[in-house]
Amino acid sequence: MSGKKLLFTPGPLTTSYTVKQAGLIDMGSRDAAFIECVREIRSSLLALAGVSKDEGYECVIVQGSGTFAIESVVSSIVRDTDVLLILANGAYGERIAKIAKIHKLNHQVLRFGEDETVSPKKTEQYLREHPEVTHVACIHCETTTGLMNPVDEIGNVCRSLGKVFFVDAMSSFGGVQMDMRQGNIDFLVSSSNKCIEGVPGFAFALCRREELEKAKGNARTLTLDLYDQWAGLESNGQFRFTPPTLSIMAFRQALHELDREGGIAARERRYKENKRILDEGMNQLGFTAYLRPEIQGHIISSFLYPDDERFNFERFYQKLSARGFIIYPGKLSAANAFRIGNIGQIFPDDVRALLKAIEEVLREEGVATTTAAKMS
Amino acid sequence: MSGKKLLFTPGPLTTSYTVKQAGLIDMGSRDAAFIECVREIRSSLLALAGVSKDEGYECVIVQGSGTFAIESVVSSIVRDTDVLLILANGAYGERIAKIAKIHKLNHQVLRFGEDETVSPKKTEQYLREHPEVTHVACIHCETTTGLMNPVDEIGNVCRSLGKVFFVDAMSSFGGVQMDMRQGNIDFLVSSSNKCIEGVPGFAFALCRREELEKAKGNARTLTLDLYDQWAGLESNGQFRFTPPTLSIMAFRQALHELDREGGIAARERRYKENKRILDEGMNQLGFTAYLRPEIQGHIISSFLYPDDERFNFERFYQKLSARGFIIYPGKLSAANAFRIGNIGQIFPDDVRALLKAIEEVLREEGVATTTAAKMS
Repeated sequence: MSGKKLLFTPGPLTTSYTVKQAGLIDMGSRDAAFIECVREIRSSLLALAGVSKDEGYECVIVQGSGTFAIESVVSSIVRDTDVLLILANGAYGERIAKIAKIHKLNHQVLRFGEDETVSPKKTEQYLREHPEVTHVACIHCETTTGLMNPVDEIGNVCRSLGKVFFVDAMSSFGGVQMDMRQGNIDFLVSSSNKCIEGVPGFAFALCRREELEKAKGNARTLTLDLYDQWAGLESNGQFRFTPPTLSIMAFRQALHELDREGGIAARERRYKENKRILDEGMNQLGFTAYLRPEIQGHIISSFLYPDDERFNFERFYQKLSARGFIIYPGKLSAANAFRIGNIGQIFPDDVRALLKAIEEVLREEGVATTTAAKMS
Repeated sequence: MSGKKLLFTPGPLTTSYTVKQAGLIDMGSRDAAFIECVREIRSSLLALAGVSKDEGYECVIVQGSGTFAIESVVSSIVRDTDVLLILANGAYGERIAKIAKIHKLNHQVLRFGEDETVSPKKTEQYLREHPEVTHVACIHCETTTGLMNPVDEIGNVCRSLGKVFFVDAMSSFGGVQMDMRQGNIDFLVSSSNKCIEGVPGFAFALCRREELEKAKGNARTLTLDLYDQWAGLESNGQFRFTPPTLSIMAFRQALHELDREGGIAARERRYKENKRILDEGMNQLGFTAYLRPEIQGHIISSFLYPDDERFNFERFYQKLSARGFIIYPGKLSAANAFRIGNIGQIFPDDVRALLKAIEEVLREEGVATTTAAKMS
């Protein structure tokens, strides 16, 4: 097995040793201490979104990866008489469309380019032309590229037109200040191994209770039934099905460490500083960012392959991995790019160390980067 | 938080420290070392079922709890033209029926009492009378009670009548010698936190490839699409969606430790010895087992509540928990019982310590156990 590496990836990401260590205990999933841990987590997550149970919001933990919770929400909340509009500008928007299709939900897709943000104005116009739409889904940080969609403005559009609003904040929640009520968000999904900096094993949906209750009896599956999962947790604090106990214990520790760092505001500052150093360094090394700076978020950055045939991404990746740095391949449909995440337990000095390693590898490979250009 | 406790539960169960510790690393889910770990696990699991890839079998890992993999198999392999027969004698058989109903699959349920095993003879008779049935599902160890259904004989019936056979071996696989080919099993499901003694986070389906291939395009969900999950793992060794990396690293260690113990045969001996000591001790304490001894498996045992109104299960549970022993509540529809698991990193001396604690608690509570009787 290889040694410890720093993950510059959008999750699973680098977590603190103390977070991982907090999972080093066998807990009975029906034991009081575990139930209390789950209760604390559910309550803390709502607080991080600026809401609470008393204010009509609920947190539902779903086993599996983030996509399991996305499918849970989509296949539970859209009833046969509803129509879901998916705002898509990358692979994760398309994934929601795929889920809607598999479950045979009434749905429409409003697409934008992968290198542009979702337009609130065009969304409003579309919704005015399609009054049959009842639900709107949007990705917050499109991890495909790293761009940040203006969910607050889209939320405002949904508020004014009376649409249920679902935000996939998978890679952003915990790394960006968000307020569900202010943003008019009815459902928000993220996972344990993103900006809260826990280990993988589960995801969670933050829900406005009034809308969640409408999902009763509407789910298309047993395990991904959002309402029943919530009702189970509410009835006795236990999960309907075996929870990932160790990941959950570790996650509580991650929440404590987020708090100690200074909450989401402080974490957002650290991530933004990571990004600033990364972008500056990559620019100096001659790389071209895929996105225009004004729409590039601070979660993950996309860089085009250098326009030099000596650049081989597989070798580049392996040589960085051998130096202890894991980066992320691209997922764009129309450009050759790779990605570097700014999130997790990585700090400005780690980013500088990564940049130094990239420089070394480029020199070793004899790659010129100054003329990098978009491929079509 | 409470300290370390021994879990006498059917999973999550007590795991070794070294298993948990093996998960103490942040792995990139696309990193070569992680991919190799997944490959090793998939291959080892097939070997434990007496089969291999070369012989036409495949291992598909599914994120989430065991029920996620059950739903994945059921909702992927039963096509619209197929008919599933569920052999049910407990809550887990009923759960498969519930999944079939939610997915609107053609299905029938052949029920047996919770205190009797599935009859291969009656199953054969039923199948002869219902030639439309294409698939048969059966629970191996019904964790509701702990009884062990005769899956080898039922497999023989399925072989002679040409039915696809699915076995839910959740709580038994790894603790009982099984051979998929000999038992004519086409699909077998278990999870990470059962008799392999790993930590929770995922489940797995062992599949005969020829039948698995028929599931292509047939799934009713995105995340639980068994064929696509397999195809994803086969294409590049990676998961379609974020895997529980730490649970997976820990699981490899659990497989190594199973091997070092002497494989499934040795583990089965240890569990049976745990059970022998437990049953003898509980009998001496005056408890009555729910099942007849000849159908009681060695995974988990059910005991009736003592017929003494001073017995309060909640208090009994809490007092044992305070002494460091976690037992399991009952799940029977027609009797008040609790359960004690014999699996996980527990050894004869641990069982003796539990029995001593039970004796103490009974004395403290002033409960008489000699007249325990079935309730209706």
